[in-house]
Amino acid sequence: MATITRIEVGARMSKAVVHGDTVYLAGIVADDNKADITGQTQQVLAEIDRLLALAGTDKSKILRANIWITDMKNFGAMNAVWDAWVSPGNTPARATVEAGLATPDYKVEIMVVAAK
Amino acid sequence: MATITRIEVGARMSKAVVHGDTVYLAGIVADDNKADITGQTQQVLAEIDRLLALAGTDKSKILRANIWITDMKNFGAMNAVWDAWVSPGNTPARATVEAGLATPDYKVEIMVVAAK
Amino acid sequence: MATITRIEVGARMSKAVVHGDTVYLAGIVADDNKADITGQTQQVLAEIDRLLALAGTDKSKILRANIWITDMKNFGAMNAVWDAWVSPGNTPARATVEAGLATPDYKVEIMVVAAK
Repeated sequence: MATITRIEVGARMSKAVVHGDTVYLAGIVADDNKADITGQTQQVLAEIDRLLALAGTDKSKILRANIWITDMKNFGAMNAVWDAWVSPGNTPARATVEAGLATPDYKVEIMVVAAK
Repeated sequence: MATITRIEVGARMSKAVVHGDTVYLAGIVADDNKADITGQTQQVLAEIDRLLALAGTDKSKILRANIWITDMKNFGAMNAVWDAWVSPGNTPARATVEAGLATPDYKVEIMVVAAK
Repeated sequence: MATITRIEVGARMSKAVVHGDTVYLAGIVADDNKADITGQTQQVLAEIDRLLALAGTDKSKILRANIWITDMKNFGAMNAVWDAWVSPGNTPARATVEAGLATPDYKVEIMVVAAK
């Protein structure tokens, strides 16, 4: 049975959970939800980098990504930030759909599964 | 190669699928979709408890949770039930977004991945 | 540490990522987004069959499926195609919710995790 390690454990959720060599991250939103889609996406991806590092891995080992954006008109701007960030040759399986988020100010949320 | 065990197998989906030591549950909705958000969330979490037990595990080993609610105005009431239910110190990675569900009466659906 | 193999790797995402004996597929949409819900679902499931084969597995080993449809009025027609396709006795854990997709023409997107 693989061990479970939880990272930044809160009363409602953990920011990351490591099960064996699989790392599950929480859905990440921007710290500054007044930023535009470009800024929010940058903040989300920086936080994903930080959490992956805490879990002992990095973006070159992301397996799957689920992206939610509140308005598909922001798809291109989100993708521009994503494309510049993602590890070339190591891109994950990904799906992006439109959904409402926790508050109207949030424009993007990203949840990834990675290997370590 | 890890074994696959399916639980409560239907023609369309199984309620739970165990692959090695990872347990994938179906998206669970309330039995009584006339209940309010509090009642529906309680029913969903009770069903998750039941299915995790059938799979040989429990809520302290949930790795990841995806929650869909039909109206973010119910976020607080859903969270109140969740916070009282989740295993302290063992909270999963979680994301909650707004989405339409199978019928307008459903207010919440939760899908989890757990370890066993 | 399990190996990672990526299949049909693009600059933005890969179509499939194999981690040990777990296969993560991208969210799949129809090639011909002018098709109706029946045609789009058939195209999506055929592409999933193709990608699972490339990963060395097949639909009888799907563990989990996430389905997004843009209008719940299409739930029955999508399910009719799904029910005829899915491997009897080997149905996955599944959740279907309503969400906007990348362009208004897309009616359904499906993302699966399988064993190999």
